[in-house]
Formats: sequence, C-alpha cells, structure tokens
Amino acid sequence: MVQQQRAAVTRAQIVRGAAEMFDKSGFEGASLVEIVEAAGMTKGALYFHFNSKEELARHIIAEQHRISIATVQAIAEQEASAIEQIVMLCHEMARQIVQDPIVRAGIRITLELSADDRGPAGPYLDWITACQTLATRAVVEGDLLTSIDPPSFARFVIGAFTGVQTVSQVLAHRTDLEQRVDQMWMFLLPGIMPATRHHGMTRIRAARTNVPVTGSSDHQDQPATTN
Amino acid sequence: MVQQQRAAVTRAQIVRGAAEMFDKSGFEGASLVEIVEAAGMTKGALYFHFNSKEELARHIIAEQHRISIATVQAIAEQEASAIEQIVMLCHEMARQIVQDPIVRAGIRITLELSADDRGPAGPYLDWITACQTLATRAVVEGDLLTSIDPPSFARFVIGAFTGVQTVSQVLAHRTDLEQRVDQMWMFLLPGIMPATRHHGMTRIRAARTNVPVTGSSDHQDQPATTN
Repeated sequence: MVQQQRAAVTRAQIVRGAAEMFDKSGFEGASLVEIVEAAGMTKGALYFHFNSKEELARHIIAEQHRISIATVQAIAEQEASAIEQIVMLCHEMARQIVQDPIVRAGIRITLELSADDRGPAGPYLDWITACQTLATRAVVEGDLLTSIDPPSFARFVIGAFTGVQTVSQVLAHRTDLEQRVDQMWMFLLPGIMPATRHHGMTRIRAARTNVPVTGSSDHQDQPATTN
Repeated sequence: MVQQQRAAVTRAQIVRGAAEMFDKSGFEGASLVEIVEAAGMTKGALYFHFNSKEELARHIIAEQHRISIATVQAIAEQEASAIEQIVMLCHEMARQIVQDPIVRAGIRITLELSADDRGPAGPYLDWITACQTLATRAVVEGDLLTSIDPPSFARFVIGAFTGVQTVSQVLAHRTDLEQRVDQMWMFLLPGIMPATRHHGMTRIRAARTNVPVTGSSDHQDQPATTN
C-alpha cells in the first residue's frame, strides 16, 4: 500500500514535470530528458509509468478533460441562472489557465496540435457541449433571445474565448485575461439578451463560481487518482 | 537580368515549399530536408537564399505582414462605412487563410510560437491597429455606440476571430469558416450598434471586399518582389 502510494506520488511528479515542460516548450519542443529533469526523476522512473512523450501528452489532455467535466458539474450545482453559469464557465477556464500548470500544458498541446489534422477536438467539444446545454436553458429562462441558435452560439463563445486567451497570452502574458473575458461579455450581452432583461447585465457579468476546481497538480503531496 | 529573374523565381519556389511544410507540420515539425523536397530544389539552392529555418519563418511572417498591410489599404480605398470595413477585414482574413498557403503558414507559425514568450506579436498588432482605427471612425460615423472603447473592442474582435478560426480548423477543417465569421457578427452587431442603426445590420454583415489581396504564392510564375 505504501509502495502504491509512493508510485502514485512519483507518477504525479512526472506529470507535473511534463506539464511544466510542455507549457514552456510545447509538445514538439519538450524533450523527455528535460521532463525527467523538471520532475527530479530518473529516466527509468519515467518509463516505468509512461512509454513515450505522446503518452504523457495524452494523459495531460485526459486530465484536462477530467478537470473540465468537474468544473461544469461544480458550476451546475450552484444557484445561478444558465446565462450566469456560461459567464462563470469562461472566467473559471481563464482562472484555471492562469493558475493550473496542467490546464496550461493541456491548452498549449491542444493549440499546437490544433494547427494540423491530428488536432484533438476533445477539449473544445467538452466546453462547447457544456455551453450549448446552458445556452438552451438560458433561452428557456428568457435571458437569451429566442433567435439565438444554442449550438452556433456555444461554438462562437468557446471560439471567442480561445482567441481572447491566445491574444492575451501573446500581448500581455495573460495578466489581463480576466479583464478581457469581462470585456467579451460587455460587448456580447446587450446583443444576445432581450431588452427586458438588460437590467441584469451587470450582475451576469460579475458571476463567478465559488467552488474553483483544482487539477492534479495540487495532488502532489497525496496519491494521484490515476487509472 | 535573366539570372536575377531566375534567382527570384527559385526564391519564391523555396518560400512556397517552406509555406507548404510549415502549414502541414508546423515550425518545429518541418525539416529543411522536407522543405527542399517540397520546393523541388537542392539544399544548396536553399542555403543560397536562406541561412536557416528561422530565416524562412521570419520571411513568411514578414510576407504575411506585407499582405496584411496591403489588405487594410485595399479595404480603406473602398466606398464603405468603417463598420463595414471591419466586417470586410474579418472575412478577407478568413478568405486568405483558406486560400493562401503563405498566410496559412504564417498563422500556424504565429500560433505555434504564440504559446510561449518568443511569440511574435506583430501579426496580431497589425490587425488590432487597423481594427482600432476603423472602430474609432465607426463611433464618429454613428454605427458604434459611444460607450464602445475602440482599443478594447479591436482587441476583442481580433481575439474572437483568432479563436473562431482555430475552432473551425479543428472541428471542420475551416470549411465553415465564412459561416462562423458571419455568425460572430450576427451575435455581436446588435449589442454594439445604436438601435437607430440596426436596420443596416444585414447590409453590414454582408460587406465583403471586392479587391482580394494575393500573397506571393501567386507569384510563382513571375519574379517575386523580394528585398
């Protein structure tokens, strides 16, 4: 049991080291030697847990998927309207990107691989699906115009968020990300909400989740729950 | 003179080969050997014109910059309101990404390098600056609400476009890009235009430039105008 726990700690350390290197140098740029060094491990320890850099990348994308699903669930359990939950989702994605190295590495790998056909659609689809469900509810709740098509709208929101964070990364090292996400909603809300609901826009823009979801990067002192 | 022309043709062929490979495999993924093969050249011919893969990448980003500036000028010369010109810019960017391998390679290299601190801000700033100038004029022309801050708005438009094209690439190989850009304006315009101008929204959404700017990829049969 102690041995199992030790193996899990080692594994989590490797994942954290890999996340750091992928975040810093990208999937193509990061070498296994650097990952081993960043994790403070031997190459043998790494190969005991992961067969290749590809497997590490897949694990990080899977971990990011787990975090996404947990985030959507945590937000769904809050007392908030659907449109507020969509705003919460965007700000929670932004917070995770800034604070969680696993999420940041997942985003970087995804963006890097997105440029060609082997690009993983999963991370985008997770968020688009969640946003679409909420948009459908927001129409029913009267906060979104009935003319808004939830699938197209969800695709736009996730697309816009993706690019807003890319530009924030390039021009401001993401220091202005929360502000830029807030501006996105400032420009968007008046055009997608019925005029009779406009009085609620300030409250909606201010919606934030109070149950932040943490990635496995925070599990480094305890056994990681890996498959 | 004939020799100079031949050198220019060779150079353009190399740039085109490099653009193809960068577009397909990214900056890190593309090798000089593959670029030489894609261009149908010898390694010697390549090294006569470019010292390294970095120099080729820089040349492609500079070429993309030249196309951007030419596009903004071509659109500025059209008889169209500033808000229509912003819509034209977005659709012209989309058209170029779909049709011009140099632009596509430039975008891919930029996105790949955007993920870390050596990311080139230039391509984003070109478009943000152009969009900001137009947004300032659109406020004066009464098509944008006076509450809209042109710098923040320009940054959001270019960010949103960047992500909309990323998601379109991953989920639909960019086949739906024009439609997604149109939807972006459908969601945005009602919230950023004064109600008294809403009757013009359909016309504004339909604005397209009629002087498409072509990249040097189209110069392959004639001497490229390189420095």
